[in-house]
Amino acid sequence: MIRFNCDYSEGAHPRVLEKLIHTNLEQTPGYGQDIFCRQAADLIKSLCQTPHAEVHFLCGGTQTNLTVIAAMLRPYQTVISPDSGHINVHETGAIEATGHRILTAPSTNGKITAAQINQLCKEHWQDDNPEFAPQPRLVYLSFPTEFGTLYSKQELLAIRRACDENKLYLFIDGARLGYGLSSPQNDVTLPDLAALCDAFYIGGTKLGALLGEAVVIPNEKIQKDFRYFVKQKGAMLAKGRVLGIQFLALLENDLYFQLGAHANRLALQIRQACEQVGLQIAYDSHTNQQFIILPNPLLKQLEETYAFAHIKPLEHNQMLIRICTSWATREEDVAQFIQDLQRLTV
Amino acid sequence: MIRFNCDYSEGAHPRVLEKLIHTNLEQTPGYGQDIFCRQAADLIKSLCQTPHAEVHFLCGGTQTNLTVIAAMLRPYQTVISPDSGHINVHETGAIEATGHRILTAPSTNGKITAAQINQLCKEHWQDDNPEFAPQPRLVYLSFPTEFGTLYSKQELLAIRRACDENKLYLFIDGARLGYGLSSPQNDVTLPDLAALCDAFYIGGTKLGALLGEAVVIPNEKIQKDFRYFVKQKGAMLAKGRVLGIQFLALLENDLYFQLGAHANRLALQIRQACEQVGLQIAYDSHTNQQFIILPNPLLKQLEETYAFAHIKPLEHNQMLIRICTSWATREEDVAQFIQDLQRLTV
Amino acid sequence: MIRFNCDYSEGAHPRVLEKLIHTNLEQTPGYGQDIFCRQAADLIKSLCQTPHAEVHFLCGGTQTNLTVIAAMLRPYQTVISPDSGHINVHETGAIEATGHRILTAPSTNGKITAAQINQLCKEHWQDDNPEFAPQPRLVYLSFPTEFGTLYSKQELLAIRRACDENKLYLFIDGARLGYGLSSPQNDVTLPDLAALCDAFYIGGTKLGALLGEAVVIPNEKIQKDFRYFVKQKGAMLAKGRVLGIQFLALLENDLYFQLGAHANRLALQIRQACEQVGLQIAYDSHTNQQFIILPNPLLKQLEETYAFAHIKPLEHNQMLIRICTSWATREEDVAQFIQDLQRLTV
Amino acid sequence: MIRFNCDYSEGAHPRVLEKLIHTNLEQTPGYGQDIFCRQAADLIKSLCQTPHAEVHFLCGGTQTNLTVIAAMLRPYQTVISPDSGHINVHETGAIEATGHRILTAPSTNGKITAAQINQLCKEHWQDDNPEFAPQPRLVYLSFPTEFGTLYSKQELLAIRRACDENKLYLFIDGARLGYGLSSPQNDVTLPDLAALCDAFYIGGTKLGALLGEAVVIPNEKIQKDFRYFVKQKGAMLAKGRVLGIQFLALLENDLYFQLGAHANRLALQIRQACEQVGLQIAYDSHTNQQFIILPNPLLKQLEETYAFAHIKPLEHNQMLIRICTSWATREEDVAQFIQDLQRLTV
Repeated sequence: MIRFNCDYSEGAHPRVLEKLIHTNLEQTPGYGQDIFCRQAADLIKSLCQTPHAEVHFLCGGTQTNLTVIAAMLRPYQTVISPDSGHINVHETGAIEATGHRILTAPSTNGKITAAQINQLCKEHWQDDNPEFAPQPRLVYLSFPTEFGTLYSKQELLAIRRACDENKLYLFIDGARLGYGLSSPQNDVTLPDLAALCDAFYIGGTKLGALLGEAVVIPNEKIQKDFRYFVKQKGAMLAKGRVLGIQFLALLENDLYFQLGAHANRLALQIRQACEQVGLQIAYDSHTNQQFIILPNPLLKQLEETYAFAHIKPLEHNQMLIRICTSWATREEDVAQFIQDLQRLTV
Repeated sequence: MIRFNCDYSEGAHPRVLEKLIHTNLEQTPGYGQDIFCRQAADLIKSLCQTPHAEVHFLCGGTQTNLTVIAAMLRPYQTVISPDSGHINVHETGAIEATGHRILTAPSTNGKITAAQINQLCKEHWQDDNPEFAPQPRLVYLSFPTEFGTLYSKQELLAIRRACDENKLYLFIDGARLGYGLSSPQNDVTLPDLAALCDAFYIGGTKLGALLGEAVVIPNEKIQKDFRYFVKQKGAMLAKGRVLGIQFLALLENDLYFQLGAHANRLALQIRQACEQVGLQIAYDSHTNQQFIILPNPLLKQLEETYAFAHIKPLEHNQMLIRICTSWATREEDVAQFIQDLQRLTV
Repeated sequence: MIRFNCDYSEGAHPRVLEKLIHTNLEQTPGYGQDIFCRQAADLIKSLCQTPHAEVHFLCGGTQTNLTVIAAMLRPYQTVISPDSGHINVHETGAIEATGHRILTAPSTNGKITAAQINQLCKEHWQDDNPEFAPQPRLVYLSFPTEFGTLYSKQELLAIRRACDENKLYLFIDGARLGYGLSSPQNDVTLPDLAALCDAFYIGGTKLGALLGEAVVIPNEKIQKDFRYFVKQKGAMLAKGRVLGIQFLALLENDLYFQLGAHANRLALQIRQACEQVGLQIAYDSHTNQQFIILPNPLLKQLEETYAFAHIKPLEHNQMLIRICTSWATREEDVAQFIQDLQRLTV
Repeated sequence: MIRFNCDYSEGAHPRVLEKLIHTNLEQTPGYGQDIFCRQAADLIKSLCQTPHAEVHFLCGGTQTNLTVIAAMLRPYQTVISPDSGHINVHETGAIEATGHRILTAPSTNGKITAAQINQLCKEHWQDDNPEFAPQPRLVYLSFPTEFGTLYSKQELLAIRRACDENKLYLFIDGARLGYGLSSPQNDVTLPDLAALCDAFYIGGTKLGALLGEAVVIPNEKIQKDFRYFVKQKGAMLAKGRVLGIQFLALLENDLYFQLGAHANRLALQIRQACEQVGLQIAYDSHTNQQFIILPNPLLKQLEETYAFAHIKPLEHNQMLIRICTSWATREEDVAQFIQDLQRLTV
């Protein structure tokens, strides 16, 4: 069985493991205050061109989202999110469990617009009793989105302006950031993100690490006392070095972006092959996740060899599936898949 | 600098790393539903002689405590803990952040008694308005305690009886369980714990893993829907295998307990040496943590070479410190420390 | 200015005040354990034909909703609500502040159907990882709805069946229950509600009391320890008698329902007059709230004399407004309003 | 049976009821935005000599405490309280339910000192990892305390200095404020409190109102968005006027303080009588609550006629009880009690 269902089917990129081994017996202080975390943070700040940012290393996406969002909101405030946002669909109400409603806007291709943000804020503040609804204070986006799509730099600039006009923070979920930044379609850079966001993160779990997300916080207000949040949410590892070491391995020598580009290239081969045999592409993704509509009989045949994620049963005996590549995807597996697809759709 | 300040100064035991490397490119499902987690869970259930228990793998102590305790309590219920309990002194109010008060009892040598538990429950239920205070529902203990001490089997049996009489769950924090179970002073077994507790955990982070705690849940009521809690608290790793693999490595061939015994043996050498030079031992610990009272001038001299944890400044220019050994502590470092101690205290 | 904007513009019905005065100097125990609360509870249980129910008296709607819902859910569970439900639109995220997501279904005329409930549950349980989303456990409805409309007995029976099939509690918000039960269009009785619901409440604040909601809990599981919830949420009055006395006054001699019928009759006069002058009625309400679409120039003229609630600006220079009558609305004010309306729309 | 067990055994002072009746049919906006609330707020600001304060009216003590404290803390922060503080002993963990630990200091006569506050803060900030414990941010006191005792102006000034030095807010629970301010022993004024506190409240429920606490907020940071908190916690009455009207009645013509003085005078008669017959007074209270130690046989005899609050069973067959007077206590009942006491202790 060849797994295309997600981008976390394997362990870590070999260079990550090597660095863990190489540093294994060095003694360091705990809780992220070791030399490796410091070096990784410095490297990230340098890549982001934000010397005054703070960098914290957390374990996974849900944990990072709930910790950062809790740090950004007062109890009566709400976070604006695309309805397809990860916090709204795959986190078991983790945000609500910290006391906050998610205010959703309908997404198009996984994205929302500055105009939608402005509209939600206008509705809140124009009410006779604004205090009868949670107060918008934060915009949450993913880059790439849940559907693999990308915000353009122009779209993000417009969203930042909407945030400024409405006194909103901007927080970007970068669980798959490396795939986004290395997409051929992308025009956004790490320094752009650091300049636009109050906080964002560089995802490791889904791009070569065993686990780990690097949270970058340019905004000083959110920096303050952030470690209290991390500790209280159970997100501070005693051996914080485990995260710092991995990010050092990934970000040295551009490995992280090379791995992203590798996965994107293979994903786009798959997309092209699907298009060529007449399958419908659900979202215009140029990153490692491709959402394809398959007739169920074809799906069944392919699933004898390949694993996909089932997203949604559709009319006319079809299924919306997700095909993922990753840093670990092998060229030959993709080639074989394309061959099988072509054979079965003749 | 030789670090004796904690038991998480290094990475992982080499066999743990080896297993991570060896399995690295195998593809598995995510979120703890892989073959390694299943094998590790089966092994643990077998070691505990509890075929009907459930086993879940989480990342660290605070995370595990807050997740299990949240799963055991209704919103108006409280957890009884020694005042020195980890949840009460080192977790930034993580339990309160899930909405629950901690009801503390003064500890002796880090331990509380069945009689104290009975008394707290009696006080609650005899009040004219019991509903004016949180309702006791759970006892939280650590084994070994924060001070390295151990509950005897008889003490735990008495506590279990107190729990039964007062309809309380019993949850044991085993962040350092391996050190406890392999102590020469110990008379409790894994099957004992599984029979006595509604839930407990086998700590990996502080005993040879990069990170990881294995939660064992014999009580079916707590098993139900536990994965919802894990996910909602941000405690479910996409690559859950990272935890399963490590526990497999640690628990195969008794490694976990051998490492614990190693650390205990060296800690007891240190304790003996301290006693011999006339230093006061604060708690009667037979595990890897030793709490010693040092005159500040001696402390200063030793700290040129060794790192300790400062617990509390004391009268008469003294300091209560903690000295930890671990699976990674080297015989020669302990020998050198003892030599230096003897030299400096002549 | 004559206020039609809500049903809580005045104090309390005179008989309520009289009973407060009459009992004022009697000494009673506090916290709802007085003779008046007991008598009111007995009367309510008798009217509901549920001798085994429990009755608790709380202060207001948001408080009651958040307390009951918190008592019904575990931390990972969610409440299904119409998107127009009060908990979703007018309570500042009070439910989320207790840790729970609201799972909304699009409402029609303020109502949702059994089929929608079934569908939401099906979607949850058919997911490969149901634990990645909050688990549905409760249905919240209002009777009458936020738009003044009513569920028929048949609709409620179907919803109860959907709840049973999906292991959901049913909780009905009766902030305006008296208006609903006394509507000419209604076919539901208090005993019906008590038989169908796990909990519901009889609203006092909006129907003749200074403040107060009487929560009826037929389900024993929800009864257990409910006073802990009430106290913890700050919802237990020291002088609980204030609520019991008012409900005694309202429910003795059918006053509550007579007042509801009075308000409904006047509201339907207003509705008929609006229809006759060609205004559009937004929802088919046969209770004390009427939602009317007014051209802004007409609205402006009427607002020289009358206050309405602005619900939503509409296209074509129109406004959706709410007109409320209450137990306190005077016949002559309604007659004058109708006359003015007719005069201004000739 | 004559009830001395608490100060909320009756309804409201007649002048409060009269004003409710007198204003009953006036139409006002809801949610505390009516003319009566505005007038009451203005009167309170005038009495406090704080024109820039905000005043909000809530229902009861627990509700007020949890709302104000939630508004003052970030999620990782803690409130310092005497261990005997109401929030710590009689509120079912309401503060913890909003996510915050209470950091208790042992009280003497119900009071804590500036030195204790300084010490707790010092301990927090001197820790190597302050972020491992909740951060002190607020001091909660009661005036009078739970034991009827009073802070002197000098004590409060010292506490305010400690707050300033440690960046702490000061919040005073005035559930029985009127009894405190009108005590013969008191040297603190309303303007003093308004100058010293970031927020405090003037209790109505226990001093002449049916229900109601007037929160005074001099600190602008806490004023901001406070109504969101009130609404979210279910603490905003639709008929907010019910509270404003009552405070108007109580505070016009000094009634509130006259009623407090009346209760204090009778309580001190009881205290004196108890002392004269040789009973031990547990706390040096000069307000309406007296804590007396009674031999159980005497208690049993007195309880044939009088109700007391049982605080704690003591050694030697004794009981600590509380005797309360109130605005409603009758001279003749106190005289009879004293006579009976003298007769039974001859």
